[in-house]
Amino acid sequence: MTIAVLPQHAQPLLEGRLPDWIDVRWWDSVEELHRHAPEAEIGWFDMHVKPPAFRAIELATQLRWLNSSYAGVDWMPLADLQRRGVSLTCGTGLTTQQVAEFAVMTMLAVAKDYPAVVRAQDRADWLAVPPGIRDLAGSRALLLGNGAIGRAIGRVLEAFEVETVPVTSRQGDWREQLGIFDWIVLAVPGTRETRGMIGAAELDVMKPDAVLVNFARADCVDQAALVDALREKRIAAAILDLTDPEPLPPGHPLWSLDNAHITMHLSGIPTPASQARAAERFLRNCERFGKGEPLEARVDLTRGY
Amino acid sequence: MTIAVLPQHAQPLLEGRLPDWIDVRWWDSVEELHRHAPEAEIGWFDMHVKPPAFRAIELATQLRWLNSSYAGVDWMPLADLQRRGVSLTCGTGLTTQQVAEFAVMTMLAVAKDYPAVVRAQDRADWLAVPPGIRDLAGSRALLLGNGAIGRAIGRVLEAFEVETVPVTSRQGDWREQLGIFDWIVLAVPGTRETRGMIGAAELDVMKPDAVLVNFARADCVDQAALVDALREKRIAAAILDLTDPEPLPPGHPLWSLDNAHITMHLSGIPTPASQARAAERFLRNCERFGKGEPLEARVDLTRGY
Repeated sequence: MTIAVLPQHAQPLLEGRLPDWIDVRWWDSVEELHRHAPEAEIGWFDMHVKPPAFRAIELATQLRWLNSSYAGVDWMPLADLQRRGVSLTCGTGLTTQQVAEFAVMTMLAVAKDYPAVVRAQDRADWLAVPPGIRDLAGSRALLLGNGAIGRAIGRVLEAFEVETVPVTSRQGDWREQLGIFDWIVLAVPGTRETRGMIGAAELDVMKPDAVLVNFARADCVDQAALVDALREKRIAAAILDLTDPEPLPPGHPLWSLDNAHITMHLSGIPTPASQARAAERFLRNCERFGKGEPLEARVDLTRGY
Repeated sequence: MTIAVLPQHAQPLLEGRLPDWIDVRWWDSVEELHRHAPEAEIGWFDMHVKPPAFRAIELATQLRWLNSSYAGVDWMPLADLQRRGVSLTCGTGLTTQQVAEFAVMTMLAVAKDYPAVVRAQDRADWLAVPPGIRDLAGSRALLLGNGAIGRAIGRVLEAFEVETVPVTSRQGDWREQLGIFDWIVLAVPGTRETRGMIGAAELDVMKPDAVLVNFARADCVDQAALVDALREKRIAAAILDLTDPEPLPPGHPLWSLDNAHITMHLSGIPTPASQARAAERFLRNCERFGKGEPLEARVDLTRGY
């Protein structure tokens, strides 16, 4: 028997469907997770708060396969997993549509100043003129990151008649053209190359009506430089699904800048629909693991995604 | 010389570009409009508030061509214009993209409960779980109305992997299938056939998680029946760009129902971009009018759109 330590929330989706060579320990609390982790040969340790999940990986000395339903796994001890010979599978693709929908929704919301419409309804105030009058149609978007999420965002923006230019973080020439874009959309993986890719120099060459859209990683952006640029209105706005730190503490300037739109890392949080997809993929990967076949959505531990 | 009575806001876009057989009277107030209207052979009398514009049409007894930059002209005395032999051109297509963007933005906002995110940011509250977890992807939309706006909405929804079913108001069979749709989107013209097309009977057969989306005309929907359905949560939500009356008075139940999303007829209000398109079309139509050629975007006064 192979011992698997799996999250209780997945039990209704997995129970009765797992191969008979798997012996499951379900966990529903940090205590349970840390008690069972040392036995785990197969582990699924996802927690929204990362340190206890990280600790579980340290405790799981028998681990051969670690599964995650998160697309981003840069918070994990990747070098350590590689040294220990653990296979890592991630949630790439599982939340693609929901993140793309969230990203484009917030871009539209900034274009039309939808928050002002929401606040007006809250005070029963019929606005006579639109608070925001930008159209996506005819605007230009630089799409940094050409993975599943970047491509999904690009497809939708093109349907909105946005001129989209997709580039990968490894292409260097995007910086020269930064000044022509209305939207700079980050959908890159979290790696050494993407850390700090948008700093003061990049913000300085953006158009005054440019909007920075970050659905990648907080550390892709020099947040202090961004706060300055937003405060001085050197760019029009930023949409930040990610911030440093998370949660953003009360009193942080990003909360109160009216051109900072904070979406609280909500876009990629597993939903019932994405959890169902995660469970189906996990079941497929159990079959593959049992047969020694390559696992679906396996992370390249050197590259980090 | 042909006398044209045109809005001052269009002057920067038109001045110096009009044919020399046109003698312009610019108007910038109701008083100026009503003073010049009786001389107008060509008129452009758009006002956000309709009764003074309607009065100007009555006063304009010399009128041969009436232009509007609004897509919907059902507020005009169409039979009277027809009897008087006045050609009417409208703004169809000029605000297509902005209305489609507004409509899809609000659909996304309802799916993700973006208003809850806005309110959370306003109180510096980092939400730990997404307030709304619906995806557009995989959902089904009935698109009532297959004009420019309906088609633009459909194109975008398809990019979001929504299964869209477009029908025109003249097709009767859509009622039988109402119960299978997540989104019922109204983008029909305002005509006798579309008045009251969504009433208690139609609301009753919708799914409990259906969302009614009205970017057509307020009177397409039986508003009292809709308020009841929303209050009793028989459908999930309504997105209403149009209401009866407008502005919605303080204390009206639609203001405070948390599943009614009021967008205050903002979607189609002319913006600098659409006004520029309106001016270009007006100039093209001046050439056509001078040569006796068919006018672009001419309204069929019998049909009403």
